[in-house]
Amino acid sequence: MATSKKSAPRRADARRNIETIVEAAERCLARDPDASMSDIADEASLGRITIYGHFKTRAELVEVVARRVLASANALLARVDLRGDPAQALARLVRASWEVTARSGSLVVAAEKALPPQVVRGLHAGKLEERVRRFLARGQRERAFRSDLSTDWLVTLFHATLHAAANEAHAGRLDGHEAAEIVTRTLLAAYQPPAGPLRRPRRSSGRSV
Amino acid sequence: MATSKKSAPRRADARRNIETIVEAAERCLARDPDASMSDIADEASLGRITIYGHFKTRAELVEVVARRVLASANALLARVDLRGDPAQALARLVRASWEVTARSGSLVVAAEKALPPQVVRGLHAGKLEERVRRFLARGQRERAFRSDLSTDWLVTLFHATLHAAANEAHAGRLDGHEAAEIVTRTLLAAYQPPAGPLRRPRRSSGRSV
Repeated sequence: MATSKKSAPRRADARRNIETIVEAAERCLARDPDASMSDIADEASLGRITIYGHFKTRAELVEVVARRVLASANALLARVDLRGDPAQALARLVRASWEVTARSGSLVVAAEKALPPQVVRGLHAGKLEERVRRFLARGQRERAFRSDLSTDWLVTLFHATLHAAANEAHAGRLDGHEAAEIVTRTLLAAYQPPAGPLRRPRRSSGRSV
Repeated sequence: MATSKKSAPRRADARRNIETIVEAAERCLARDPDASMSDIADEASLGRITIYGHFKTRAELVEVVARRVLASANALLARVDLRGDPAQALARLVRASWEVTARSGSLVVAAEKALPPQVVRGLHAGKLEERVRRFLARGQRERAFRSDLSTDWLVTLFHATLHAAANEAHAGRLDGHEAAEIVTRTLLAAYQPPAGPLRRPRRSSGRSV
């Protein structure tokens, strides 16, 4: 393709600026979910005009940052071993998910504030969401998780509980170091098949969890 | 107090306009969580300028509507009998809460989209929140609900699960008529004291739930 000598460096500048803006936004939003475009411009050492030249609205920028953080989160979560005992696999999944959530700081809060719920859900609707769904469906088939509630609802609960914990931790009402265990215990209980009259005793897996 | 003849009717006009705007906003937002200030102005048969004269931002208006809907919701929920068996009381509380949620339509979604999480939480932080907290704490004392998780976390789960169900129902992924039962079953399981080696058999309270 014919490219003028002028436009190639310009495009390179634009790419570099976008990269700088997104990285600055990620740092700002991880610290403060209410970070403004001006805060982000300061952090990026760029003018607000430049930022608005690339991102028409704050929500647009938040969405790009959220997609990027989720992409690296997905790479990390893709390595979580979901095989074997479903309860133990769930504990591993929650631990890794919380680590990712904690690392992204208040970005989860920023995304929930700036973006419509369907966009937030859409951000998750990739390989990771599919992996969580397949894992929960397997747990249901193996009767480790309840089947009287839909797999969809179990997936929703997974995200809702993690997000609730992130909000609580951000508000200082939940100790971040305990969050993963609390979420795991909550979900294991919520996912447990309902006790029936002929319910077999649960295999004991230690004192708690 | 001395009041000029001019200002009294003006204030009455303003009050009437505010009332009209808030009622129109409630109808609009219950139908469409993305209803704009223009949509609300049309519904109220008032100009956008008048609306912005009373509410500087859309978020401000959404918050007023949410407060108003919650006030009437609280009045309804205050009548729910929370005495007696905690599991059955929880089922009654969830049913009434869902009824209120379903009646407010997409307003819950609108509030979550327009307002920061701490404001949404603040909206609940009245008598109702206190009543739910006291009820859950009683359930914990009576060992109907688990005590290995804090009362705060059980309150958070109550709201998170109801809100998740409202979002799912709004997105058409959950049948609104089944939502109350699904939320009740989810919370009852999540709140259940963890099974220990010396756990006494649960008092049977029927086939399911």
